[in-house]
Amino acid sequence: MSEHTVRAYDRDLEALDRKISEMGGIAEKMLSDAMDALSTFDVALAQQVVATDQRLDVLQREIEEAAILTIARRQPLAVDLRECIAAIRISGDLERVGDLAKNIARRATELVDEARTLRAIIGLKSMHDLAALQLKEVLDAYAQRDAERARAVWLNDADLDALEDSVFRDLLTFMMEDPRNISFCTHLLFCSKNLERIGDHTTNIAETVVYLASGAPMPTDRPKTRSFGQAEEKP
Amino acid sequence: MSEHTVRAYDRDLEALDRKISEMGGIAEKMLSDAMDALSTFDVALAQQVVATDQRLDVLQREIEEAAILTIARRQPLAVDLRECIAAIRISGDLERVGDLAKNIARRATELVDEARTLRAIIGLKSMHDLAALQLKEVLDAYAQRDAERARAVWLNDADLDALEDSVFRDLLTFMMEDPRNISFCTHLLFCSKNLERIGDHTTNIAETVVYLASGAPMPTDRPKTRSFGQAEEKP
Repeated sequence: MSEHTVRAYDRDLEALDRKISEMGGIAEKMLSDAMDALSTFDVALAQQVVATDQRLDVLQREIEEAAILTIARRQPLAVDLRECIAAIRISGDLERVGDLAKNIARRATELVDEARTLRAIIGLKSMHDLAALQLKEVLDAYAQRDAERARAVWLNDADLDALEDSVFRDLLTFMMEDPRNISFCTHLLFCSKNLERIGDHTTNIAETVVYLASGAPMPTDRPKTRSFGQAEEKP
Repeated sequence: MSEHTVRAYDRDLEALDRKISEMGGIAEKMLSDAMDALSTFDVALAQQVVATDQRLDVLQREIEEAAILTIARRQPLAVDLRECIAAIRISGDLERVGDLAKNIARRATELVDEARTLRAIIGLKSMHDLAALQLKEVLDAYAQRDAERARAVWLNDADLDALEDSVFRDLLTFMMEDPRNISFCTHLLFCSKNLERIGDHTTNIAETVVYLASGAPMPTDRPKTRSFGQAEEKP
């Protein structure tokens, strides 16, 4: 490549990087706002989360198009091609994190008229805190192209799965205790599944960061401790 | 492009097409086997579905890599670039249909020891039948690059959403009637959500087929009739 092409290529990659940072920031904010809306029955905040999701969809399409155009124009090889592929994959995962946060926000708007079992939300908050921390960590790992940090995120996802297991059992118990809890807790069951899936997308991003930084794919099987109520795997 | 390049390019696209057909066939089989396993409590069949999913993951990676290499090597423009992008997107959606079928199969293995409310499965079967039909239709629409047929699939997804709504209400009723149904019906709730999400991926594929055949993106908002219990949107 000529020096001119190299510089133009660097500019392409920097633009991709900036857009992924923007997506990451929006996804983090949506997740935290969705959980706040759910905990405080704040319908206005929930609606704001739902509205924000469109921006994430637009950014994802822009990143996908820009990455593919870069591949077509500059014909990058090896590490530079990996940068483009990583941008496509990570933007896809962040877009889905946004969708899942939006799902939680939608539930929050529906729960307003429901009988409330406030203790049922406590476990969800723990799940949220871990999912939000994991998301922040993996975005930092991407920004620094830090494979070790990404690997740590990947391993910690097992803790989120264990938390979901515990939340699942608690919610089932609340439902069995009093049938009036069934509808409310059913909504929370879906929220906990959404949080667990956000963890899975975070894990996908971790795998992409390792691939980007090292060129080697991660093993396909994550360490999983699956038990009752957690029949699902991968987002 | 020289004639030689054109022929090599056609071969690239034909290979992508073949692999997507293979993925489509596997995803259809997984979905139908997962539902059979769930209806008949057939653990062996469920385990077979889970095992098959790996093949789908491998095919997706192969398609993604081949499409990106084709873009980098041949620098296609317009409709040919769309073919490559469509292959990446559709293989991603089919891989997720496989994941969701696998989730249903995993639930099937866990339901063996549960108290069974067989009438609760009837609604799920209707959802499955419609989801399977939609998936078949969209795969045909892709094979024929038929935008009209894809648009029909896209519109029919509202029926699957309506069915999920009805299944959700029924399952809640069964749980409220008898707390011993709670655990079993909770698993079925997740299965119905998985079927609904398979419908969403089918809709994504329909959007990709329209984009491929016409060059124009579909509108971002699908006609949705959302009501209680269906707070989620998009897979």
